[in-house]
Amino acid sequence: MSGVFLYPKGVKPPKKEESIKEALPRKKDPRAANRGMDFESEINETNAYYLQKDLCVVYKRPTPIKIVKVDYTHGAKIKEAYFETQSTTDYNGVYKGRYLDFEAKECRSKTSFPLHNVPAQQIEHLKRVIAHGGIAFFLIRFTSVDETYFLPASYLISFLQSGGRKSIPIDEVRKNGARVKEGFRPRYDYLSLVDDFFLK
Amino acid sequence: MSGVFLYPKGVKPPKKEESIKEALPRKKDPRAANRGMDFESEINETNAYYLQKDLCVVYKRPTPIKIVKVDYTHGAKIKEAYFETQSTTDYNGVYKGRYLDFEAKECRSKTSFPLHNVPAQQIEHLKRVIAHGGIAFFLIRFTSVDETYFLPASYLISFLQSGGRKSIPIDEVRKNGARVKEGFRPRYDYLSLVDDFFLK
Repeated sequence: MSGVFLYPKGVKPPKKEESIKEALPRKKDPRAANRGMDFESEINETNAYYLQKDLCVVYKRPTPIKIVKVDYTHGAKIKEAYFETQSTTDYNGVYKGRYLDFEAKECRSKTSFPLHNVPAQQIEHLKRVIAHGGIAFFLIRFTSVDETYFLPASYLISFLQSGGRKSIPIDEVRKNGARVKEGFRPRYDYLSLVDDFFLK
Repeated sequence: MSGVFLYPKGVKPPKKEESIKEALPRKKDPRAANRGMDFESEINETNAYYLQKDLCVVYKRPTPIKIVKVDYTHGAKIKEAYFETQSTTDYNGVYKGRYLDFEAKECRSKTSFPLHNVPAQQIEHLKRVIAHGGIAFFLIRFTSVDETYFLPASYLISFLQSGGRKSIPIDEVRKNGARVKEGFRPRYDYLSLVDDFFLK
């Protein structure tokens, strides 16, 4: 049971979509949904590690599924359903008594983070989180340069509100955020940056 | 778009399972899963109301779904999948800078709340939430007497640890918790009890 305890559903693989999509040829698949898979799994592992070390309690929210048809003849077997977009962010939890809420995004550009990656409802959600005293941020992975950044959501929101530009230059991300230290465990050490940006 | 904004997916109906199960004759259906439907929807409405009034940001975590088969011929259509049990609680969010985490349960007994309603992994999760400074509680609806109670998770955990008994007598729930005020909006006014129990 300890494996179940340390890696409950929603935290650690089996990641539902991935278990299927991993069987597909990854590099030949151009869909955006697939590009995020490894990053998401690694963040899930980071969270499982933090949980195991009792540093915070952060989970990925399960992917919302729109269910259309269920067969109840033997238990409940879903026969037709569709993936839905998360209307909040993917991750939230508690750290040092504070509410954490963040989104993890990957982008291929070497020079900037395109803001079309962040749907309007996520921005609204993060604004509310900040207004209610929560800690809100993004983890942005620039896959082409193999660098991952921690960026406070407040910066991204004010960048959006300043108008006009459709992407945040990577130098602005570097200046207003911080590079996430990568390692084996934790894979992405974002908690130390929560300390630096919000709790010092 | 304002309707989408106020009632994002996962907060307000369309509740996925319900939209299907509601078509079934409710009173003839003995499954436990169905008994919780109205209560859950009402709590979702309560949360949507609180969100609209900008009092807190609390969402139901989407139900985890185990996906077995996906047809990618036209988009991604899930062809076989199963409901999974939430390994955390159903609800979490932020209120007055604090992390909130709670579970809503219904029971039919007039005299006590059976603890088999609370899986071990939820207890472990709530223990961690408390250890990390979060606010953790249960909303327990006794359907037979039409009364709903707010009960701090710390009490339920200590009751479990005191051993032996398999259900909490309703009088103990009354003594260690508080009756939730019911109304139109909010349907269940649990935030005032968060204030009373945790923030005063």
